[in-house]
Amino acid sequence: MHHVRFRDPAGAIRQGEWHDDAITFGGERYDHDEVDVLPPVEPSKIVCIGRNYAEHAAEFDNDVPDRPLLFLKPPNTLAGHGDTVTLPAGKDRIDHEAELAVVIDEQCRHVAAEDAMDVVRGFTCLNDVSNRDDQNEEQNWVRGKAFDGSAPIGPVVADPEHVPDDAAVRLRVNGELRQEGSRDQLFFDVPTLIEEITTYLTLEPGDVISTGTPAGVGPLEDGDHVEVEIEGVGTLKHGVRIP
Amino acid sequence: MHHVRFRDPAGAIRQGEWHDDAITFGGERYDHDEVDVLPPVEPSKIVCIGRNYAEHAAEFDNDVPDRPLLFLKPPNTLAGHGDTVTLPAGKDRIDHEAELAVVIDEQCRHVAAEDAMDVVRGFTCLNDVSNRDDQNEEQNWVRGKAFDGSAPIGPVVADPEHVPDDAAVRLRVNGELRQEGSRDQLFFDVPTLIEEITTYLTLEPGDVISTGTPAGVGPLEDGDHVEVEIEGVGTLKHGVRIP
Repeated sequence: MHHVRFRDPAGAIRQGEWHDDAITFGGERYDHDEVDVLPPVEPSKIVCIGRNYAEHAAEFDNDVPDRPLLFLKPPNTLAGHGDTVTLPAGKDRIDHEAELAVVIDEQCRHVAAEDAMDVVRGFTCLNDVSNRDDQNEEQNWVRGKAFDGSAPIGPVVADPEHVPDDAAVRLRVNGELRQEGSRDQLFFDVPTLIEEITTYLTLEPGDVISTGTPAGVGPLEDGDHVEVEIEGVGTLKHGVRIP
Repeated sequence: MHHVRFRDPAGAIRQGEWHDDAITFGGERYDHDEVDVLPPVEPSKIVCIGRNYAEHAAEFDNDVPDRPLLFLKPPNTLAGHGDTVTLPAGKDRIDHEAELAVVIDEQCRHVAAEDAMDVVRGFTCLNDVSNRDDQNEEQNWVRGKAFDGSAPIGPVVADPEHVPDDAAVRLRVNGELRQEGSRDQLFFDVPTLIEEITTYLTLEPGDVISTGTPAGVGPLEDGDHVEVEIEGVGTLKHGVRIP
């Protein structure tokens, strides 16, 4: 099943099902463009992974680190499918980063890798929008990665069985393919990430782990239309505004 | 007024008033040790400042940076007055860092420094507990600063008029004074921090800005009793357990 959170035409917030031809909830059917699709979860935090694809790490002359490079996106970063995100003004380079994101299903800590898939609700698409001007100048990537709108996410949470072990991760800007990778290229796989993070932090239901981006990151411009497509999940679409 | 959030003897969560001799809510009076004092706010994020006192920056051979050094503590880090926090096991050094923390009163972004005190609800005490083993090894201070229990906070939110411009910030371990500084030693003051943070991030009601720690940081041991005292706020007390 593909779970979608949306505001219906009467303004009520619903947890429904996404189908190719409609969104459904409680016997009602809506066209996709008839409702306001919201971020599919309300995480207390997004734990992100840097440099988790060898080819992307090499783009910026980095190696894949010895253990997962962690950083945080708080809830102010969230944006939804169909939204146009306003990015910080006056920066030389703000990049797209397509990512496979994991949604956590239950409060958990000290989860061993072999049990980790038991705490996974499903998968979604995330664009880890990155303001390089500030990221490259700061110890912790707060101005660089935690600004408002830096985490478009969605459109759905897909149950785990829909997403193959080698699921393709793609990003297009204005229809042109910019990034392509696959889940089996993750240097630290999903169970390893869950074990490492929960060694230190409790994860809550709806929390998100974003697993890193494949090669091909590049700058966004005012007016761009972005699509993050993950095999088995679907396609997150959002616009970009730079004042 | 000094605002306290607590669980009453019947288990109800209340927002009451802290007095020297009692906690009150709705005509009821409780002894301080009769109730379970909770973190006084439920922030969506804590935005923390590093190296904001010149003397502390020098302790680790750092300068005060050109602009505020920001990092994040998500909600899993919260602990309350009277709690015993369990710290990560097997580390060589986990330090205390006493801090004056600012509580935000309204959703806000792009707040100019001259208007910044209008969005401040009040002040509280925070211990920015820091796991140096991991902090010194990672780009973003997640294992180092965002582990469970790394943000004991409270016991109250004091209205701004109670906290003088030169309010003393002190920390004691097992009754012995370890840190002492004052609000007027902050390199970047509270209005400057609010302007800088809200240039990038929306702050929500109850969000916290922790303003950095004065000199005297040092290691915590299993069984320690910590007190963070801020003039005009009161004293946050918590215990430490290291398995």
